[in-house]
Amino acid sequence: MNRKMVFYIFGRIGQVAAFLLLLPALVAIIYSEYVQLRAFLITSLASFAAGSAIALLCKTKNRVIYAKEGFAVVSLAWICMSAVGALPFVLSGDIPSYVDAFFETVSGFTTTGASILTDVEAMSKSMLFWRSFTHWVGGMGVLVFVMAIVSNMTDRSIHIMRAEMPGPVVGKLLPRGRDTAKILYLIYIVMTLVQILLLWAGDMDLFESVLHTFGSAGTGGFGMKSTSIGGYSTYSQIVIGVFMLLFGVNFNLYFLLIIGRLKTVLKSTELWTYLGIAAAGVVVITLNIMHLYGNFGTALKDAFFQTSSIMTTTGFSTTDFDLWPSLSKGVLMLLMCFGSCAGSTAGGLKISRVVILFKLILTEIKRMLHPRAVTSVKFEGKAVDKQTLHSVAIYFAVYVFCVIAVFLAISFEPFGFESNFSAVLATFNNIGPGFGAVGPTGSFAEYTGFSKIVFSFAMLLGRLEIFPLIIALSPSTWKKSR
Amino acid sequence: MNRKMVFYIFGRIGQVAAFLLLLPALVAIIYSEYVQLRAFLITSLASFAAGSAIALLCKTKNRVIYAKEGFAVVSLAWICMSAVGALPFVLSGDIPSYVDAFFETVSGFTTTGASILTDVEAMSKSMLFWRSFTHWVGGMGVLVFVMAIVSNMTDRSIHIMRAEMPGPVVGKLLPRGRDTAKILYLIYIVMTLVQILLLWAGDMDLFESVLHTFGSAGTGGFGMKSTSIGGYSTYSQIVIGVFMLLFGVNFNLYFLLIIGRLKTVLKSTELWTYLGIAAAGVVVITLNIMHLYGNFGTALKDAFFQTSSIMTTTGFSTTDFDLWPSLSKGVLMLLMCFGSCAGSTAGGLKISRVVILFKLILTEIKRMLHPRAVTSVKFEGKAVDKQTLHSVAIYFAVYVFCVIAVFLAISFEPFGFESNFSAVLATFNNIGPGFGAVGPTGSFAEYTGFSKIVFSFAMLLGRLEIFPLIIALSPSTWKKSR
Repeated sequence: MNRKMVFYIFGRIGQVAAFLLLLPALVAIIYSEYVQLRAFLITSLASFAAGSAIALLCKTKNRVIYAKEGFAVVSLAWICMSAVGALPFVLSGDIPSYVDAFFETVSGFTTTGASILTDVEAMSKSMLFWRSFTHWVGGMGVLVFVMAIVSNMTDRSIHIMRAEMPGPVVGKLLPRGRDTAKILYLIYIVMTLVQILLLWAGDMDLFESVLHTFGSAGTGGFGMKSTSIGGYSTYSQIVIGVFMLLFGVNFNLYFLLIIGRLKTVLKSTELWTYLGIAAAGVVVITLNIMHLYGNFGTALKDAFFQTSSIMTTTGFSTTDFDLWPSLSKGVLMLLMCFGSCAGSTAGGLKISRVVILFKLILTEIKRMLHPRAVTSVKFEGKAVDKQTLHSVAIYFAVYVFCVIAVFLAISFEPFGFESNFSAVLATFNNIGPGFGAVGPTGSFAEYTGFSKIVFSFAMLLGRLEIFPLIIALSPSTWKKSR
Repeated sequence: MNRKMVFYIFGRIGQVAAFLLLLPALVAIIYSEYVQLRAFLITSLASFAAGSAIALLCKTKNRVIYAKEGFAVVSLAWICMSAVGALPFVLSGDIPSYVDAFFETVSGFTTTGASILTDVEAMSKSMLFWRSFTHWVGGMGVLVFVMAIVSNMTDRSIHIMRAEMPGPVVGKLLPRGRDTAKILYLIYIVMTLVQILLLWAGDMDLFESVLHTFGSAGTGGFGMKSTSIGGYSTYSQIVIGVFMLLFGVNFNLYFLLIIGRLKTVLKSTELWTYLGIAAAGVVVITLNIMHLYGNFGTALKDAFFQTSSIMTTTGFSTTDFDLWPSLSKGVLMLLMCFGSCAGSTAGGLKISRVVILFKLILTEIKRMLHPRAVTSVKFEGKAVDKQTLHSVAIYFAVYVFCVIAVFLAISFEPFGFESNFSAVLATFNNIGPGFGAVGPTGSFAEYTGFSKIVFSFAMLLGRLEIFPLIIALSPSTWKKSR
């Protein structure tokens, strides 16, 4: 493997991280939070110094990287970004324990939104901002961001995008990976700005609007109140509900929309399945919870908001859905696993994989009946090649095995089956809240340090879609190349 | 489809069922249970009359059947055998509700062992015998049994065996399906007799020995005491523990042993993985529960018995494992899904599928690193063909989807997440008891009639490995052939 190049890119990421940390530092100045300002500046300087040193030491003429290097650099970057991003919380004293701060930062970057905070209102403004900003950065991808702003870092950026972008197939919108990254970020920024303005027009002030937009755009879910979105107006709730859904759509579709290919967009199987599943979820939950509200309108609004929030793996809440009947909770748990579209900022299995899996099952039935028939699976109007089909089925298996493994690792915790299992789904699918002890009114604070590390690992596994992390952690990956 | 042939075979099965019902009738005579005797005789006569009429009406010269017919006849037979087998319980008044009796009989034939009885000791002897006898018949397969005793029923019996025998690949031991069926049943009968004698030599009387052997041989788990095996001597518990494990081994291995191919047996990946997983389960649980017992020997014995019982999907218990720490319960839940070897009487995913899945995942990682490398998966010393690999991965997906679907269907039940989820795993994997309300001291009695029907369906799905039932239930299967 081209270790030098891996560390070179890694060093450049350290430099970018240093600049990212200046944004919350600015917020700290605005709100006169000088302890926090100091924490951000120290971390930023340290990150810049270390990153520059590594980049300088590892500068190499051999800029070619392959899949292996892509997985390694992405995994390394995500782990270290979280490790560095946790420092300001500890240095400022907002989150005294480093393990807690690490959990919170991983939760931020992976757009999970699971929190160890028991009193979020006590946090300083700049730390709240940093927490939510990690969602925004993590949503579209840390490395995609780096690629978009650092020119000519490597000739093979597609390997990095493949490792970081979720979904079974990564579409290259433009011939050059860097241009694709730029387009994606441009769409992302415009949508973010629109949502901020819409929220600001309602009952949120600018700071609240920005924070909640970061949470929706990255499909993260960190808020700034213990009641999440529950205390805001119906208008704000609906804006956030709709935008979460929008950020769960494959960004390639927005690109197609911009270049005027509306017809292709409207023919997207993934889009319609996504909206269909969401609609089905809303209908079932509304009917199931109506007797609790006695009011169809409120039941519909809460069912819509919660479905959108869970399905897009955001994790905002307008009500304590842990008190809902078990059918609704079962539906939510299923939506947790499905997730949203590939190529969006959301986590979970991704709708395209679910659709392909269902088609594979139908094909298998056909094959059992007519062993010699030639079968193929079509998706988005094209036949999917055998290798991709095979990979989707295997990804599903490894996904389930990971859920089971993480569940077993934390099953000694005394919170009962429902809390533990939903905590695993909530972290692994990058959602945030689960049920019971980790429900919308609870937190991960009571879990042991060991479990917090396991959950952090689960969040990273889920965000990076398992394989990159496994590959990066196997020593054979790091062997010197021939 | 050759509908006539499907119904002809179905009619012949009705005749065989009539004879099977004479065995518990004999027990009723021995114990002077005349109400029960009448119930068995009426059901037997009705089954014989109906079966003969159907067989006579549907006699056809076109005896050729294909996969489709195999799935249809197996599904039809299992549903109707359960529907008929439930009648004696209702006619005698031992189980007054037909839905309950149907659940109990499905649970028997599918070797699940889940029960709606709250007071098993109150049952008549002949009904207890019938209940356990269904385990024994269902274990090796109703149709395999019919094929073994009815001569020359069809020329293509392999299609029936494929539909009924569990596991990714059905090995033909001998060129003719009927001879394979005979060999399998011979091994099964000899092992059953040995276990009866060993138990009889301990603290069980003949009746108890026979019943508990039926429960172990079919890996079913119906007993005759509310404490299951808990009230018997350590000797009896160990005999049952060991025999459950033996019945969870692929019967092909016993055949190989008989014809002297010990070396091939000792090289079996599936066998060693099976024993390895069992050993790992025993070690983890023993360490985890030791503080509850304060005695290494008892902890080891109970851990061994419970691991063997759950992994082979039998469901006997020597202790209330619902009171064990959550780590042990987590391990048991995992073993519930793994199940035992293909070609055994046990349920679950089957070890061979689990092994192949793991190897597939490793291959996928290799492929991600070296996209052009040629990869293959070896199992039992041979390269597995692509189609089988593909089928294993898809089976796993459909398996998980079924678990989720059944869970959602019964999630309105008020027993909480742990009880409901373990009830689904316990029925779908043909185990029997789960945790909480359906734990070793509980029963399925409190579930609604609707859920009992859903669980019955889940047990059949699990036993027949999903696809046959789905295919048989789709109307297009029953279209007249060209």
